[in-house]
Amino acid sequence: MIILMKRNSTKEEIGKVTAWIETAGYKPHVSEGVERTIIGAVGTDEGRSMLKSVAFLPGVERIVPILKPYKLAGREFHEQDTVVRVGDVEIGGPGFAVIAGPCSIESEEQMMECGYIAKKAGARLLRGGAFKPRTSPYSFQGMGEEGLKILKNVGEKMGMPVVTEVMDTKDIDLIEDYSDMFQIGARNVQNFALLKRIGMSRKPVLLKRGLMTTIEELLMSAEYILSGGNTGVILCERGIRTFETATRNTLDISAVPVIKELTHLPVIIDPSHAAGHAKYIIPLTRAAVAAGAHGAIIEIHPQPEKALSDGPQSLRPEVFYRLMDEVRILDEAMQNGIGKL
Amino acid sequence: MIILMKRNSTKEEIGKVTAWIETAGYKPHVSEGVERTIIGAVGTDEGRSMLKSVAFLPGVERIVPILKPYKLAGREFHEQDTVVRVGDVEIGGPGFAVIAGPCSIESEEQMMECGYIAKKAGARLLRGGAFKPRTSPYSFQGMGEEGLKILKNVGEKMGMPVVTEVMDTKDIDLIEDYSDMFQIGARNVQNFALLKRIGMSRKPVLLKRGLMTTIEELLMSAEYILSGGNTGVILCERGIRTFETATRNTLDISAVPVIKELTHLPVIIDPSHAAGHAKYIIPLTRAAVAAGAHGAIIEIHPQPEKALSDGPQSLRPEVFYRLMDEVRILDEAMQNGIGKL
Amino acid sequence: MIILMKRNSTKEEIGKVTAWIETAGYKPHVSEGVERTIIGAVGTDEGRSMLKSVAFLPGVERIVPILKPYKLAGREFHEQDTVVRVGDVEIGGPGFAVIAGPCSIESEEQMMECGYIAKKAGARLLRGGAFKPRTSPYSFQGMGEEGLKILKNVGEKMGMPVVTEVMDTKDIDLIEDYSDMFQIGARNVQNFALLKRIGMSRKPVLLKRGLMTTIEELLMSAEYILSGGNTGVILCERGIRTFETATRNTLDISAVPVIKELTHLPVIIDPSHAAGHAKYIIPLTRAAVAAGAHGAIIEIHPQPEKALSDGPQSLRPEVFYRLMDEVRILDEAMQNGIGKL
Amino acid sequence: MIILMKRNSTKEEIGKVTAWIETAGYKPHVSEGVERTIIGAVGTDEGRSMLKSVAFLPGVERIVPILKPYKLAGREFHEQDTVVRVGDVEIGGPGFAVIAGPCSIESEEQMMECGYIAKKAGARLLRGGAFKPRTSPYSFQGMGEEGLKILKNVGEKMGMPVVTEVMDTKDIDLIEDYSDMFQIGARNVQNFALLKRIGMSRKPVLLKRGLMTTIEELLMSAEYILSGGNTGVILCERGIRTFETATRNTLDISAVPVIKELTHLPVIIDPSHAAGHAKYIIPLTRAAVAAGAHGAIIEIHPQPEKALSDGPQSLRPEVFYRLMDEVRILDEAMQNGIGKL
Repeated sequence: MIILMKRNSTKEEIGKVTAWIETAGYKPHVSEGVERTIIGAVGTDEGRSMLKSVAFLPGVERIVPILKPYKLAGREFHEQDTVVRVGDVEIGGPGFAVIAGPCSIESEEQMMECGYIAKKAGARLLRGGAFKPRTSPYSFQGMGEEGLKILKNVGEKMGMPVVTEVMDTKDIDLIEDYSDMFQIGARNVQNFALLKRIGMSRKPVLLKRGLMTTIEELLMSAEYILSGGNTGVILCERGIRTFETATRNTLDISAVPVIKELTHLPVIIDPSHAAGHAKYIIPLTRAAVAAGAHGAIIEIHPQPEKALSDGPQSLRPEVFYRLMDEVRILDEAMQNGIGKL
Repeated sequence: MIILMKRNSTKEEIGKVTAWIETAGYKPHVSEGVERTIIGAVGTDEGRSMLKSVAFLPGVERIVPILKPYKLAGREFHEQDTVVRVGDVEIGGPGFAVIAGPCSIESEEQMMECGYIAKKAGARLLRGGAFKPRTSPYSFQGMGEEGLKILKNVGEKMGMPVVTEVMDTKDIDLIEDYSDMFQIGARNVQNFALLKRIGMSRKPVLLKRGLMTTIEELLMSAEYILSGGNTGVILCERGIRTFETATRNTLDISAVPVIKELTHLPVIIDPSHAAGHAKYIIPLTRAAVAAGAHGAIIEIHPQPEKALSDGPQSLRPEVFYRLMDEVRILDEAMQNGIGKL
Repeated sequence: MIILMKRNSTKEEIGKVTAWIETAGYKPHVSEGVERTIIGAVGTDEGRSMLKSVAFLPGVERIVPILKPYKLAGREFHEQDTVVRVGDVEIGGPGFAVIAGPCSIESEEQMMECGYIAKKAGARLLRGGAFKPRTSPYSFQGMGEEGLKILKNVGEKMGMPVVTEVMDTKDIDLIEDYSDMFQIGARNVQNFALLKRIGMSRKPVLLKRGLMTTIEELLMSAEYILSGGNTGVILCERGIRTFETATRNTLDISAVPVIKELTHLPVIIDPSHAAGHAKYIIPLTRAAVAAGAHGAIIEIHPQPEKALSDGPQSLRPEVFYRLMDEVRILDEAMQNGIGKL
Repeated sequence: MIILMKRNSTKEEIGKVTAWIETAGYKPHVSEGVERTIIGAVGTDEGRSMLKSVAFLPGVERIVPILKPYKLAGREFHEQDTVVRVGDVEIGGPGFAVIAGPCSIESEEQMMECGYIAKKAGARLLRGGAFKPRTSPYSFQGMGEEGLKILKNVGEKMGMPVVTEVMDTKDIDLIEDYSDMFQIGARNVQNFALLKRIGMSRKPVLLKRGLMTTIEELLMSAEYILSGGNTGVILCERGIRTFETATRNTLDISAVPVIKELTHLPVIIDPSHAAGHAKYIIPLTRAAVAAGAHGAIIEIHPQPEKALSDGPQSLRPEVFYRLMDEVRILDEAMQNGIGKL
């Protein structure tokens, strides 16, 4: 921690600050500058909350934290990329893994069609929502356990691991029985009760960045899960809320290289929720491949116009086949062209 | 719903749109403009999700929803202001009600001191956190049930109703035993599992707007609670996330008149979390009184420099006394000066 | 400037950093922490740009600037509040000064009516736009010099100083002849050519914060004007762009206490452009008085429905009279109630 | 324009609205819904400002504009892609055109080195700033005309067209003599005086999106230039301001497909200003190629650590060579792989 003193702080004020630093178990280093005094507090992280209260002392202008607030999620103590295994699929190594499926599981037939399309196109995992977070209490809320059964069944038939969203700590045991990976949605990214409980599971989890979450906060949410002992965390950028309304949210494509720099965890993108409209999903997925993401999660539906949720952003089968062909061309250019430069 | 057709949409495309509207149970009204055709879909709200899929049909440019997505929260069907009763305190009528207390309950002694300060200053309700939502898993997470006991006990001694945050559906029964009002925090404003479960309670709830929540989304979250039969919802503006970093969040003071126009529910503000620093809390609370808010929730601490959480934004006793004196003067000017113009 | 080294930076890297600091004319102070080394660079501001390049050296994680980038605008070197005189009106001292008038000057008759209403209601200055910044090239662009003549004429008849917007360096001389104060609009807040040229004038200037301008950037723009020798700068908060769309922009009411803390310059608010709708202007102006602003600039029109620009946010005469009555009551409560606590 | 009436609007109110619509020269179409009445106003765009005032009439809830506010910039009346010619370089057709050069022209030697690097790497145009928009009045403000001479000279030696920023209407004639393309910077995107004056030139212009400019507003700014008769407008996405601070701004990659849908004008990206740090520029440029942008503008410097401005985001020669190699591989995959699917 660095403490910046006000321009005209007195010797006495500086003395009280250094005394406080020592009480908190740190060692003070005073640097007297031309215009103001700066005091460093050197020590381990344990007295941190007490130390921070130095901001209250007279003469202090502001404090600057030095250490990153996350440990397990950071690259500093874990340099190697983490590869997360979901069933027999690996995410985080070379290659671009696509997770596909409908927003909501609506029926066995619809889910089977989706599974078939996903498999045929070359997707590696299957998604489908059974408990749906809907802005309106009057919208379709998902099929619940019946949906989970369908999902698991279709995943087995297709030989694809499945992922589904969990919204409440009380549903975790149930979902653990049916799903190969948990998904924590954007609106629950700081539902700390849920994060803690998932940290106690040993199933991997797809953690979506919230609409208002900074990358640092996302890594802190991952830290909740990692600190519980669950190491299988995949991060997902799905668009942040900005002033622009041409797309539903703004895909923060820079988050891909930033996250890869700061953490060893894999990062994928969700162009469907970011764009909010099917017509932008192909170019955004191409951008994700080129930016270096480890994969993408994409909403598909055999007949989007009949979808019970997220129809406008779900891809028709023929568009999804096209998308996967484009992904293959770019992934090849990334791995064998650019990768061998 | 209004459907705007593209500039060069064909008769056939228009025919398919009107057919779809009829299938969804609505009546189409076609208006042919100079530059494009506009089609209205008239009907009740039931076929809404099906109707929305009209956006997929060829020739459609975009759709414009007409009805507000909330009913019970809106003024249209409930013109009169709702006054919420918490214990013997009313919020939502005339007068500015202040809720005060520490961020976290830390000990019986600390809570008693806070209760005494709050009471002496003229606050009406007592707040205190027992389950704390913290960005870092390594920060103090609250005293849990022990804290709830202290809070209830202090509230009874001071003759003040109490409010505390609930973060997980599994804690609702416990908190219901100890608290006069639930608080749903900003990070859980779209935790729909929690909202639904609180809707089944009959205790009032203080629902905080999220950092990234539009006013319309806040009203939809209130609708979740109201539609469960719990009518005691108080809304709280606590700052939204913007690009400005001089304050922790940006207090959206306009939300006060906007919310009062759109809904009959009471609205209060939380200047402590909005500003993130004690020095701005007095002017922001004054602004809230003048803007017409029904109250404020303010963090106080007998010794902020020793607080286990939110120290920098907690008011010292003498500052809080001053704040309450200022509130009284402005509230008087609002009620007896401006109110009688 | 403080330089944070990476966790595993080498002695050699640290040596190169301290050498660079010395070459830039600063003195290095090395603090070796438990987890990383921190280096302070002590000196005056002259070698700043060269010093900043230290960020490129191997082993450097990030740099933290210490000094505020503005000098003349800051309180550090100018503690006393600046009171700006426009004609015989003072802004920046006690009391809440209202500037009123139409968005655009449309005719002599309309401007006379506005002048009469403003005067009668107790406004101190008159505003009116002759060169209008319009998003669309097809919208009314203002009356130009003819409008300036009308404005000056009405101001003289009413005995009120006038203010009008300048958009282009080539118009400054012209406007200087007619107006008592320049206005620089939100879209030109970082039009540095304009700021520099206004700095050479000795007429006061109302500098509006941009939709996307941080408070620090606003103070830097003021610094451009002040560094040219023009000391009469009044700052104006007029709403920032956020994700919320219920109001046109989000009035950042916290900017009032923040600006008053950081700078000695007066600060007023513009509720008309912030809200974008007449119905919210009274509560927002009340909030501005209570937050401690030095004044407000408000759009009025004898018949808003016939205004050539900004009709929806212009107040009708009777609403403006009401607003001024409310302002008087709150200003009295602020000055004689709270001011004497 | 569509007018939504309030739920309980009266026949008389509806009558007044339809009368107003007719007075404004439009034809009203009344649709009585189950819950509220909707009125369409059909006509050409001429009476628009008068029509908008219908929002003031009693009983009106809100108005919904139907027509896009831009004409010349839109695809509706100009379906074919516009290819802009700058010297002998075409931007807007197939292939990805890179513009490279230093932030500021600092000396003949520095500019020659940049020109040589740019040429060798395969860039098509050369950039360099002579008039610099700097947040601080104390920062280097550019070499002015001397810089322009150097730029023109280097461009001629390298056989590359050049582009430089114009900040003030009074500099336009001067810059026109030296530069093959104007650049309008982010801070001047709504400097309407400048836009109008550039519209009168016949040299192409690179128009950068502002930090807080919506895509619609950017197109309106382009409309200012186009409506003056200058058809050579290239749009540039350069990052928008959001709450995320890991990058200086947030590159809105979705703007590429959105802009290509809405307008016929070319769109390029500026990863240097978006990211603010050299380390993210390669992945972001790759993303731009894959998203379908027509090019990019990239800051390079022979020795970034000695740059007088924007050093941290300028690429060293060897990194820029690498970037151009990667661009070539992806552009080939886009054109010959994906383009022929």
